[in-house]
Amino acid sequence: MQINGNFLKIQKNYLFSDIAKKVAAYKAANPDADVIRLGIGDVTRPLAPAVIDAMHKAVDEMAREETFMGYPPEWGYDFLKRAINENDFAARGVKLADDEIFVSDGAKSDCGNIGDIFSADNTVAVCDPIYPVYVDTNIMGGRSGDLIDGRWSRFIYMPCTADNGFVPEKPKAHADLIYLCYPNNPTGASITREQLEGWVAFALENGSVILYDAAYEAYITTPGVPHSIYEIEGAKKCAIEFRSFSKTAGFTGTRCAYTIIPHDLKASDGTELNALWARRQATKFNGVSYITQRGAEATFSEEGKRQVRETIDFYHGNADIIYNGLKGLGYEVYGGVDSPYVWLKTPEGLSSWEFFDLLLNEVQVVGTPGAGFGPAGEGYFRLTAFGSRENTRRAVERIAKL
Amino acid sequence: MQINGNFLKIQKNYLFSDIAKKVAAYKAANPDADVIRLGIGDVTRPLAPAVIDAMHKAVDEMAREETFMGYPPEWGYDFLKRAINENDFAARGVKLADDEIFVSDGAKSDCGNIGDIFSADNTVAVCDPIYPVYVDTNIMGGRSGDLIDGRWSRFIYMPCTADNGFVPEKPKAHADLIYLCYPNNPTGASITREQLEGWVAFALENGSVILYDAAYEAYITTPGVPHSIYEIEGAKKCAIEFRSFSKTAGFTGTRCAYTIIPHDLKASDGTELNALWARRQATKFNGVSYITQRGAEATFSEEGKRQVRETIDFYHGNADIIYNGLKGLGYEVYGGVDSPYVWLKTPEGLSSWEFFDLLLNEVQVVGTPGAGFGPAGEGYFRLTAFGSRENTRRAVERIAKL
Repeated sequence: MQINGNFLKIQKNYLFSDIAKKVAAYKAANPDADVIRLGIGDVTRPLAPAVIDAMHKAVDEMAREETFMGYPPEWGYDFLKRAINENDFAARGVKLADDEIFVSDGAKSDCGNIGDIFSADNTVAVCDPIYPVYVDTNIMGGRSGDLIDGRWSRFIYMPCTADNGFVPEKPKAHADLIYLCYPNNPTGASITREQLEGWVAFALENGSVILYDAAYEAYITTPGVPHSIYEIEGAKKCAIEFRSFSKTAGFTGTRCAYTIIPHDLKASDGTELNALWARRQATKFNGVSYITQRGAEATFSEEGKRQVRETIDFYHGNADIIYNGLKGLGYEVYGGVDSPYVWLKTPEGLSSWEFFDLLLNEVQVVGTPGAGFGPAGEGYFRLTAFGSRENTRRAVERIAKL
Repeated sequence: MQINGNFLKIQKNYLFSDIAKKVAAYKAANPDADVIRLGIGDVTRPLAPAVIDAMHKAVDEMAREETFMGYPPEWGYDFLKRAINENDFAARGVKLADDEIFVSDGAKSDCGNIGDIFSADNTVAVCDPIYPVYVDTNIMGGRSGDLIDGRWSRFIYMPCTADNGFVPEKPKAHADLIYLCYPNNPTGASITREQLEGWVAFALENGSVILYDAAYEAYITTPGVPHSIYEIEGAKKCAIEFRSFSKTAGFTGTRCAYTIIPHDLKASDGTELNALWARRQATKFNGVSYITQRGAEATFSEEGKRQVRETIDFYHGNADIIYNGLKGLGYEVYGGVDSPYVWLKTPEGLSSWEFFDLLLNEVQVVGTPGAGFGPAGEGYFRLTAFGSRENTRRAVERIAKL
């Protein structure tokens, strides 16, 4: 038996465990310290009442033989795909067929598993800094080459910094698969319609596929910023879009997401990528819990939409407090407007980790060092809007004392 | 962009859609016909009351900020892994560490995704007939070679027929990965301790890994038949085991399963397969819904165990009716004792599909043609115990009229 040797190439991602260790060490040395955590990208607000009601109802259906639900469709129940289609696409003028929507247990699963349908020979372009899943899954899939000076030899890196507004330049070399995430994790940046049009045009010209992660689209507040890549003409021929209920409706612990693969997206021999993914999911996946899908459907009811919007508004309130608070203190801050993430330039030439240590040791606030997301994240730092209002306020007050 | 060309090799599995089409055509021609379906491998009894209670409670926890649960651990909550370990292993004398247990959304997902950690160069041995997922996922993973005369050139086929009691001979050529499923789908056969010892010894001698699908272990009634491959000395060094709550506790629509990879299972360079799978799951999976995991945990409470056992006993009652009924009618029948599946030899030299047509057209009973599970399934037919008691009885009465 031979293992997949690509797994041995992956360095353990120590970012969050390193953070946890540093926090634990600090708390061991300072047992009474009141540490405020604004580092983690997980939500904290409870599920919307409409979702709770729908899930209780679905649980009761599972209790009676007449309403019991067995194996779900591998691609999602029609009731949920229809609700997604109407609310997330038709309402924005995007026309999709229901069978272009694949419901799953998470955008992380889909972002990772999508590699199954592509050849290992493809060249991958990734933003820097980046959500590590795109990188690690392509290492596992044999598309990375070797690690040379901290970069994988077969990846095309696209730096995202304040200089380019965190929207990268087009790659100079040919890229088969281009990962874009907007609103962006970790920088909190959004992409304008014109910029996204440029990317679609580039992908169409070059025969590239854009893997578009729109998990944070619900946080967009700027008018005109596209919520879906399919708002751009031609995108159906070059883009796969990943969506999630995690950050939209607080489903990080409930697990539901979906991926769009339009029928128009085809390989050079005419094979529809939709058909490949349908086969992949039917073979290696068995669908999402009925109870979860009823909960996800409820986010699209009138009251569900209102409740979900209230929670997002709440997180936006936190983002405003962080963004405006730090700006008022003279920090160079980004994101926060179309995103739950605030990305800031570390002061006075401090490295990401030095600023982390400073915040933890001096004012007991925990954030995430930008360098943990990639080399171009060095000198930046991420704070998230997912804490309580009180802790968010207190964190900014403490940073003011630095 | 290049697709994974292996996907184009996969023939559409028409088995269940062919069955659906034939049934639909029959019903169109005979609108008043009362068709009894004993073909599908999906459960029909509601979830146990203990599971329902636990899920309602978990839903309520998700409704309050103080008890809300965000991202679950990618490998499962400790409370569920401990319950699994105590009840499914320690209680049978098998000692596992909790971190040898990986909770997931389904055995189909795990059986499919496990290929990620193995090289495409491995040689795969499969039983015939077989659960198609093992075959299709290895085609996708590049381990099949070409289809020649209905068989994949790089697979080792191990026929399972009445002659060998549906437990195959050891492969003559070297096999890196050996798929075994006991109690077996589709034949309903179980494997004795001595036979399983022989397989473990063979795998240890040859450096093979056994991928052991024990999704039906809860149906074992014969004393001494192993419920887990780890009941066999040495198995921790050569076997991965797949388990599921689907058939045990009716979770086909609720989605929870688990996979065991012992630390002792190592590649020749000493790499633990456990570490590779941990990394795979942490990178391409985000854990199972908290609500679902609380439901799964409840199957191990005293009342949960009793309720789950009642449902399995009910299905066993159906299996007895089918097995004994058909045997009394002179059919050659197998399975049914340690399994919800009854596997029968088609009468008078009828092919699997001819017998299917006969049952549908003459007595309006739907089963599954054995040939749909592989060439060696030709001349066999599968009936399942997952129907209602009344329909099961009526199906046998009808078959008696043939």
